[in-house]
Order: sequence, then C-alpha cells, then structure tokens
Amino acid sequence: MTVDLPKHDVWMTTKRIETLVDGVFAIAMTLLVLSIPLPQIPGYATNLQMWNYLVGLSQQLWVYAFSFLLLASFWRAHHMQFFYIKRSDSALIWINLIWLLFVALVPFSANFVTNYGSHQLAMLFFNINMLIIGIFYIVNWTYADRKHFFIKGLSDEQNSLMKRLNLVLPFTAIIAIGITFISPFFSPFAYLLISIFKSIFKRGLI
Amino acid sequence: MTVDLPKHDVWMTTKRIETLVDGVFAIAMTLLVLSIPLPQIPGYATNLQMWNYLVGLSQQLWVYAFSFLLLASFWRAHHMQFFYIKRSDSALIWINLIWLLFVALVPFSANFVTNYGSHQLAMLFFNINMLIIGIFYIVNWTYADRKHFFIKGLSDEQNSLMKRLNLVLPFTAIIAIGITFISPFFSPFAYLLISIFKSIFKRGLI
Amino acid sequence: MTVDLPKHDVWMTTKRIETLVDGVFAIAMTLLVLSIPLPQIPGYATNLQMWNYLVGLSQQLWVYAFSFLLLASFWRAHHMQFFYIKRSDSALIWINLIWLLFVALVPFSANFVTNYGSHQLAMLFFNINMLIIGIFYIVNWTYADRKHFFIKGLSDEQNSLMKRLNLVLPFTAIIAIGITFISPFFSPFAYLLISIFKSIFKRGLI
Amino acid sequence: MTVDLPKHDVWMTTKRIETLVDGVFAIAMTLLVLSIPLPQIPGYATNLQMWNYLVGLSQQLWVYAFSFLLLASFWRAHHMQFFYIKRSDSALIWINLIWLLFVALVPFSANFVTNYGSHQLAMLFFNINMLIIGIFYIVNWTYADRKHFFIKGLSDEQNSLMKRLNLVLPFTAIIAIGITFISPFFSPFAYLLISIFKSIFKRGLI
Repeated sequence: MTVDLPKHDVWMTTKRIETLVDGVFAIAMTLLVLSIPLPQIPGYATNLQMWNYLVGLSQQLWVYAFSFLLLASFWRAHHMQFFYIKRSDSALIWINLIWLLFVALVPFSANFVTNYGSHQLAMLFFNINMLIIGIFYIVNWTYADRKHFFIKGLSDEQNSLMKRLNLVLPFTAIIAIGITFISPFFSPFAYLLISIFKSIFKRGLI
Repeated sequence: MTVDLPKHDVWMTTKRIETLVDGVFAIAMTLLVLSIPLPQIPGYATNLQMWNYLVGLSQQLWVYAFSFLLLASFWRAHHMQFFYIKRSDSALIWINLIWLLFVALVPFSANFVTNYGSHQLAMLFFNINMLIIGIFYIVNWTYADRKHFFIKGLSDEQNSLMKRLNLVLPFTAIIAIGITFISPFFSPFAYLLISIFKSIFKRGLI
Repeated sequence: MTVDLPKHDVWMTTKRIETLVDGVFAIAMTLLVLSIPLPQIPGYATNLQMWNYLVGLSQQLWVYAFSFLLLASFWRAHHMQFFYIKRSDSALIWINLIWLLFVALVPFSANFVTNYGSHQLAMLFFNINMLIIGIFYIVNWTYADRKHFFIKGLSDEQNSLMKRLNLVLPFTAIIAIGITFISPFFSPFAYLLISIFKSIFKRGLI
Repeated sequence: MTVDLPKHDVWMTTKRIETLVDGVFAIAMTLLVLSIPLPQIPGYATNLQMWNYLVGLSQQLWVYAFSFLLLASFWRAHHMQFFYIKRSDSALIWINLIWLLFVALVPFSANFVTNYGSHQLAMLFFNINMLIIGIFYIVNWTYADRKHFFIKGLSDEQNSLMKRLNLVLPFTAIIAIGITFISPFFSPFAYLLISIFKSIFKRGLI
C-alpha cells in the first residue's frame, strides 16, 4: 500500500529551517574569532613587541571582518529570499540543508585562503565554495517559484528583480575564479565589487 | 498533600524542545568543520605540496559531507515527526533530551570512525550510535501516538506510513552492524542505501 | 527630568530570554562532546589497544552522559518555570542572566571534577556550582510570584508544588556538600537521588 | 528597467535579526568558559597544589564573570531597543550585523586584556571595542527613530530617555580610554560605574 503525505508537503511552514539556518550562521560567525591568535610574548611585553603584534593583528582582523561580513551577506540574502518564501516541502528543505553544508565550510575556506592566499589552488578552492553557495540561491528561488511557495502579492517585477539579484554572487565568483589564473592575491577583491554589480543587475542592464 | 500538574502535562507546546533541538543540530553541524585540518606546509607551498594536501583534503571533505548530511537527515526526520506532534508532556520531553544525548555524540562517532574506520570496534561504536538514534524515533512516535499528541487530521494511513518510515534507520543500522563482522570498511556504505530502503518501506513491501 | 518605563517593565514577554537560554544550553550540551578524547594509537591499532581505549572511553562517556543529563534537567526545570511565567521585567531578566553565568560554568565544573574527582576541593567547587544554580530557581520563582508574572489560572496548589520542587536541587547539593567532607568520590551520587527527593517533596512530607 | 522593493523595506519584521543576535550572544557567552584552564597537576594533587590552583582560578573566574556580564548587558540593551523597534529595512539590518561583528570580537578582546591587562595598548584595544559597540547603539536607535520603526505608543519622554541611556556606554568607554593613559590597570573599573552613570543619565542631569 502506498500513501503519500501531500498536505505535509504543501503547507509546511519555513519556521524551523529558518531557526536552523540562523543557528548555523550565528555559530559560524562567532567561531571566526577563535582563529585570531593571542600574542605569545613571554614575560612583560615591551611597547615595541606589542606594536609588532598589533600590526600583525590588523591583518588577522581584516580577514575576520571580511569573512564575517561575507557570512552576514549570505545570511541577509537567505533572509530576503525567505521573506517571500512562505511554504516548503522536502525538496526545498534539502536544497537549504545542502546549501548549509557549503556555508558551514566558509570558516575553513576563509582560514585556508588566509594562510595560503597567494596560492592559486587555495584561492580556487575558496572561489568555488562561493560559486556553489551562489548557485544554490538560484536553485532555491527557482524551485520555490515553480512550486508557487511565495507570499501572496509578490509581483512579477519583484520576482524578476530577485532573479537578477541571485545572479550577482555566481557572477562575482566566476570573475574571481578568472582573476585567480592571472593573480591569485587580487582574486578576493572581486567580492568588494558586489554592491556595484548589485546595482547594475538591479537596473537590468545585463 | 499531593498535587499534580495535569494541565501542564497535557497542553504544553513543543516550541522550546524544537528550539533546543535546532540549536544542538546547528552547533553539531557547524563544529564538524573544525575537524578539517589546514595544511602544515612551512615556507612557500609548491604546487606539488598543495596538490598532495588537496588530495588528502578530499577525503576529509567526504567525511565532513557524510557526517553533515547524516545529521541533516536526523534533523529532517525530527522536523517531520514534530510537524505532526503538537503537544508534549514530561516523558516526551525526556525522550527527546536523551535522544539529543546520542545526536550530540555523532561528531565524536564520525571522527572516531574516520580515524579508525577499518577497525571493527570503531565501526561497531558508530553503528550502535546510529541504531540507538533510530530506536528513539520509534519510541518518540509510539509514545506520542499512545498519548494522542498528534495534530488533528492525521489519518491512519499517514500514521502507519510514519511508523514504517521510522523503521528505516534502525533497519539500516542493523545491516551496517552485520557488515561490520564481514568487512568494517564497507559498513558505512549501508547508509547510502537509506533512500532505497525508504521507498521500499513506504510501499509497505516489508 | 525623570521618566520611567513602566509599560516596558510590566508587559514585556519572555520570548527572547527563552531563546537565549535555549541557545546557551544547546551550546553547553553540544560542547561537552569535545572533552571526549580520540584514541592516540600510532600506526594500525591492535584489538587489544582498541579494547583498552574503549574501556577508558566508557568512563568518559559516563561523565558525558552525566553532565548532559544534568544540563538537560536544568533546562527542563527552566522550561517548567517559564511555562507558568509569562511576563518579565528588568530584574527577572537579570536573575536569569546571572543564573546563566553559573549554567555556562557547568562544562568546566564537570570537567574539573572528572579529572580531580577524588579531591575534596574540586568536588566542593562542583557542588557549590550546583547549589547556586538551585538557589537561583527559588529566587526566580519567588520574584515572579511577588510580581504576579504568572499565567492566569495557576492555582495555589500548583504554585505551592512548584515552590517545593524548587527546593530539591539546593537540598541535594547541600547533602552532596556534606558527603564531600566524608568521601569526595561518592558525593556526585547524591544527584542520582534527585528523582526520589522529587517525589518526596511533591508529596510535601518535608 | 528599475524596480524597487518598497514593501519589503517597510514592513519587514525584526524576528530573524533577533534570532541571529540571540544566537551570537549565546555562543559568545558560552565560549568564554573555554578560556578557563584546568589545573595541570601531574599525579595526585596535594591540598596545597589544589589551593594554589584555586587561588589562580579565582582570577580567571572574575574575568569570566566580568566578560559574561558585559555581554549580558549588551544583550539586554539590544533586547530593550528591539522591544520598541518593530520594523526593519536593509540599512537597519546591516547596522545590526556590523554591530554583531564587534560583539563577536568581545571574547577575544576580553582574553587579550586578561593576559596583557597592565599594558596600555591592550587596554586601548579593549576600550575602543567597547566604544564602537556603544556608538552602534546610538546609530541603531537614531536610524530607527528617523524611519519611524518604533512600536505605536512610544512617548517622546521614553524616546528621549532611551537616547540618554544610549550615551552611557560610549561615555564610560571614553572615560576608560582616558584612564588608560594614566593607569591601564585601573581602566576596566570604569565599567563598574555604568549603573551609577545610568541613573545620572536617566535623570537627565547631564
């Protein structure tokens, strides 16, 4: 005898997937700080020793800030999608769980790239991680669109705007991957252009 | 004088147990990434050194992905049960808390089996952990069924389907335990058959 | 000019304090697993080496299970109190925050007592931690009672029952402290009597 | 074609930003305990050795309690602001995300200052961290005020009171920075005066 669970699959809310996602982001963002090393100065630290430490620290703090804000923007993008997505089914939940797998990998990728940033293979690893995360936003939105999981009142213009915004991260990641083959060190700077790409895609020029 | 708290035990919601469960899963899933080691290459890494590291890394990433998706599927199963379970009492909460004890052990089990995977005892430890988690799903559902904690409108067919689906994980774990005595290394591959077992149990052939 | 925020203090809900508490418990409970060490067997492990490791592991697993269930019962007790407490003010929130300070200390206390369990001072430290947590339950409930923060329909019998149940943990901790001066090693076994004490206090014999 | 998302920006709730903030605080507060070291006494510890450890531990516990309560008061202040703020837009969310970046840094700052507390540069680092967190409360409230994101019924007196309360942390941090140039060691004691400053600012004397 075969029985399906149609109701379950149709009107399941998105509350718990949001709680899980928020939890994973909160932990990943807070754990980043653990990678900042304390100074290892035996005895009383001189001013010079402390300055040298703080100069080295400033680089670590930039990496921390960069990784934190990267994760924050991923969270924000998920937040935005689920502002419109109000129902879910098994497939949508699994899309989000697999997406989380790559998000939870970001602290490792960021750490990897920090220590071996001038190396092409390390930078490729990081950028491919970004690309996969970006592709999952497209998959998530497209699936929710096809299954009509959106909140009522989402206009076609808003839908089309979201679709274009979803292209920004994969587009940036592909550019970053391209730069990797020219100069690995400059590759992460591509992500600083995200807000520019965003306003371009918003206007629909591309 | 003896006073009971009958109301308390009857109409308590499941909100906070869900928040706690979501928190434990979010942490367990995010902590998995900490077990992936960074390369330890002194000085500038050559391409060959980095390739060798990435080849070793690929194995670590499979273990990470395997453990992450295993936890994700446990979360999904819990999510599904509590889609139908809408009330709780002390006993149900304790069933879930003890189940959490074995879930929070999964990062250790997975790590153990990664490092000593070809060893029968390590693999038995992992599979028994899986078996216990699976049995708790049955206990949880059976108890909620007996106490009528389900959402209104759950049909007998859906109830019976859930009961059969609850058998999949213990069934797979027992098979995996059996394989342990033949070839420990191949034992975890039993879990890759879960989706096949699922569709078999769904159809009620067994 | 002095302005107070009376409304704020009166009808503030307890939602966010519950979220924070659930988060702290989820993390504390999941972090316990990090204190279980993997075997350090160089080369291929023999059956004998693995057995010896598993025998040692069994002790670690008991400590893990003990600490986990202790935290779970603290969470459960908080859950129970806030089933009845439906409003909050600044003072109640601070009572809970300071209580959390001692709850977040439990993984350390448990670890301390595991490594130096036969030592009186270590055991005293652990038991005093338990005593303080227990006292905060009394303070929390008494304050909420005085400020009428309870859900409507809480009968005097239920209130009085909760008051007696709040005495169980401090009572057990004081007994455990007493045992510390006779035989530190047996002191934690006092906590195994909690369920017996609970039914005694429930009946109001003491 | 340019399309904006006006509705989105106007009536978005604050629920998920609260969940993320609660998560980050729960983790940061719980991770503090990991910085308390266990005694490293080989063999059986004598009473004297244990006493010496506990004397050293008491200092670590004060740092733990200080950092925990500092984070707790930051959480409380955020809780209080979002009791009144009921809507959000992209800018408000980003204000909170960047504020979180500096909050998640507190375990590092506190640890830094614990190990190098008598050093001016370490203390400056800590105090500047506090100052930035404090400034973000002002930015958050001012922005929400300008955009009319408050709950209905917030009187001008309450609004003005909150504005004055938001000045307490930056004011204290600036005093602490000043003390750093006289005697770094005494600089953190400025934060113990927060409750006095609070009642002064509440009365609007300044």
